[in-house]
Amino acid sequence: MAKEKKVEQITDMEVDFAQWYTDICRKAELVEYASVKGFTILRPYGYAIWENMQQIMDAEFKKTGHENVAMPVLIPESLLKKEGELVNGFAPEVAWVTMGGSEELEERLAFRPTSETMFCDHWSRVLHSYRELPMLYNQWCSVIRWEKTTRPFLRSREFWWQEGHTLHETAEEAKAETEQQLNCYADFFEKVLAIPVVRGRKTDKEKFAGAEATYTVECMMKDRKALQGATSHYFGDKFSRAYDVTFTGRDNKLQYPFQTSWGSTTRMIGAVIMAHGDNNGLVLPPAIAPVQVIVLPVAQHKEGVLEAAGALRDRLKAAGIRVKMDDSDNSMGWKCAQYEMKGVPLRVEIGPRDLEAGQCVLVRRNDGEKTVVALDALEEAVKEQLASVQQGLYEKAKKNLEEHIYPAFSIEEAKQLQEERGGFIKTMWCGDVSCEMAMKEKAGMSSRCIPLAQEHLSDVCACCGKPAEKMIFWGIAY
Amino acid sequence: MAKEKKVEQITDMEVDFAQWYTDICRKAELVEYASVKGFTILRPYGYAIWENMQQIMDAEFKKTGHENVAMPVLIPESLLKKEGELVNGFAPEVAWVTMGGSEELEERLAFRPTSETMFCDHWSRVLHSYRELPMLYNQWCSVIRWEKTTRPFLRSREFWWQEGHTLHETAEEAKAETEQQLNCYADFFEKVLAIPVVRGRKTDKEKFAGAEATYTVECMMKDRKALQGATSHYFGDKFSRAYDVTFTGRDNKLQYPFQTSWGSTTRMIGAVIMAHGDNNGLVLPPAIAPVQVIVLPVAQHKEGVLEAAGALRDRLKAAGIRVKMDDSDNSMGWKCAQYEMKGVPLRVEIGPRDLEAGQCVLVRRNDGEKTVVALDALEEAVKEQLASVQQGLYEKAKKNLEEHIYPAFSIEEAKQLQEERGGFIKTMWCGDVSCEMAMKEKAGMSSRCIPLAQEHLSDVCACCGKPAEKMIFWGIAY
Repeated sequence: MAKEKKVEQITDMEVDFAQWYTDICRKAELVEYASVKGFTILRPYGYAIWENMQQIMDAEFKKTGHENVAMPVLIPESLLKKEGELVNGFAPEVAWVTMGGSEELEERLAFRPTSETMFCDHWSRVLHSYRELPMLYNQWCSVIRWEKTTRPFLRSREFWWQEGHTLHETAEEAKAETEQQLNCYADFFEKVLAIPVVRGRKTDKEKFAGAEATYTVECMMKDRKALQGATSHYFGDKFSRAYDVTFTGRDNKLQYPFQTSWGSTTRMIGAVIMAHGDNNGLVLPPAIAPVQVIVLPVAQHKEGVLEAAGALRDRLKAAGIRVKMDDSDNSMGWKCAQYEMKGVPLRVEIGPRDLEAGQCVLVRRNDGEKTVVALDALEEAVKEQLASVQQGLYEKAKKNLEEHIYPAFSIEEAKQLQEERGGFIKTMWCGDVSCEMAMKEKAGMSSRCIPLAQEHLSDVCACCGKPAEKMIFWGIAY
Repeated sequence: MAKEKKVEQITDMEVDFAQWYTDICRKAELVEYASVKGFTILRPYGYAIWENMQQIMDAEFKKTGHENVAMPVLIPESLLKKEGELVNGFAPEVAWVTMGGSEELEERLAFRPTSETMFCDHWSRVLHSYRELPMLYNQWCSVIRWEKTTRPFLRSREFWWQEGHTLHETAEEAKAETEQQLNCYADFFEKVLAIPVVRGRKTDKEKFAGAEATYTVECMMKDRKALQGATSHYFGDKFSRAYDVTFTGRDNKLQYPFQTSWGSTTRMIGAVIMAHGDNNGLVLPPAIAPVQVIVLPVAQHKEGVLEAAGALRDRLKAAGIRVKMDDSDNSMGWKCAQYEMKGVPLRVEIGPRDLEAGQCVLVRRNDGEKTVVALDALEEAVKEQLASVQQGLYEKAKKNLEEHIYPAFSIEEAKQLQEERGGFIKTMWCGDVSCEMAMKEKAGMSSRCIPLAQEHLSDVCACCGKPAEKMIFWGIAY
């Protein structure tokens, strides 16, 4: 009976990209909808991907001296309101706790949408001297933002993230931290998620509420839409002043410290799906794949096959590879489709004929490439193939990004390029928010970032024709 | 100036145990109060202890096939109310979200006090066949229970925990899971936290709301009060029926699965403080200490001392030991007191005379024992001393437990023993809740557990004189 189990089909990505995306989220068993509107459940396979991401990022954060903490999840309204810009930015999206047990609370409490206010409040009580600086904190938790429309990983009322919050003696140190963490994110996207990024600064319109400057890593998905990968903010001493965070400086005078924050979320899983997935399902970079190698015995009822497959699995496990074997009674066709759907980077097949020849077959998920390998050389060959999948994914994504950045010199041209080709449209920009609004209104694109790697395309703004010194990227964003 | 920095004193534990406890929580920089009443902040040092606990437990859970997931933090009231006993047990302590953004919600949402209901709701939608069982899930998160009085780690409106939730084909399998996880906790307490436990079953009065049976590991603190360490629950198919969780069984008929849950929280940090701490501060078991060894250069301005101390640190780091060196300009006295306060298990001192003699000095935190060690033998000696601290803590705590379990044969005797000596009072018990109430009322003790390791003390209940077959432990609990 089980052998006839059907492989579930997903929507073709060329037909309906949004549905293709949702199909993968569900069929690869990454998420499931909860009975609370707008909330999702991270299922074991989805959570395992998140855990791998966490582990790698957490180690990077700690290498540069960051420490994890846990702040309360509820923020008193009066505390949240001390910094006007921040609260205005987040107020429409805050979930409020108004009752504890059977009693109405005297002051309602916000479920954290972000924790700058809590960190500042804490620092205002524990910071005394410049000797205690910098304070380099990070927190892994979930936050709530009461979004109207939601999509798995990309926009969800609750999402899981890390939020780094740091405090420094000088503005220079805080700026260096903001840059360091931006680069940390960029490296993570490129080396771990195999997604190339554009590093840049957000415009004032798009920056984080209350920040002096917001930096971003922007990615391009397979449908050529933009996705903001992670952000790093510099606050100056604005929050310090609002929350009365002070320290005694080297000059023995009371000073305000300088602050940063930086965050990345489970939407990175959404980025991985849309950067690498195909019509057979998810394609995972080996660096974050819960299962890097699936061992499939072929004609497993034949003598010696199961034992040989088991031995391969044990050897790969001993070599530090995340490996599983599937010796269930499902058909070979079903198994192959199933592990393709789940994005397992490498399949190892071994059957009676392979046994005779002292070999096995490796099949790469990303391009279907098969390699016949002598059993003796298994570990080395598997590591090579995994590295090749990781590299192959990155190169393909890089090609997608590089081939879809188009210069434009007017809003009309920008609009036409976006409609015909998609991707990032790069133009010169005068810096005026009204030009940003015009691009949004007329061409349907938001500013993605002012890339750190600038080019001089022309002398004037593509929107208004006034002198312009900055090159900016536009796109349609998730 | 900094050299004159004062060592902060803590309250003597014999004078005021509660104040001594709070002093350690604050002075060892484990927690800080938040500006939200009843909520605490886990500071870097406290959180690092929690991270070490998490890492070890998580690996154990995974060894037995458990997978991590993330469930939504908010539970619709109607969902929470489907199982009457559970909601009655938790309703007085639930925090309610009633507003999202500026809109009143149609149905109020509970901040999870525990997630049985969410898991059941999820399972009711994803479970189909016996082939998918068991489902072995775990979640690391924070929960809220709106307590009236709070104390750091022990009772806090928000606390951090893991909650395991599993679903099984048969009652036997679910019971075996409950037992396995109880033993997992017991091992963790004894081998990792160095705290001996009494394994037992909770009475009906003390069991988890909605559970068929609750098992517990009970610990004894230095003040001879009891602390419930962690619990493991068996639910039968009660929740399955309430939430309509079904699967097609081997007989092709629809069946209800059997369920367990089990949890442990940041209160384990409180247990460590009160099981091992002394009047100089925290004493950490090496297995969970964020810093296992602190290297202190003596007379560090003398030639070669700093280099030698740095070399020791590097060697210990390379040997996989969590080590730090303090070469700040604080005085030696301050440093020693500081790392004692923070409970660092081992101090390594090296000065000019040691250098000449090719040696260093190891000082154990738990008993002050000094060992002079040849530099060549450093790694081995440090590992031996760390093992000896771990073992020494366990033995001392075991002695404290074993020496303070007293048999009693009447409520009056039980009361007198508790007042004079403290600890666990063991009696025979008829099983009647009215006897439990009488013990509480007349002797101020709650039932801790019915130990799995039973003894026959007499034939009759110490409370009512009726025939009794069970031995029960009583105590004053945190």
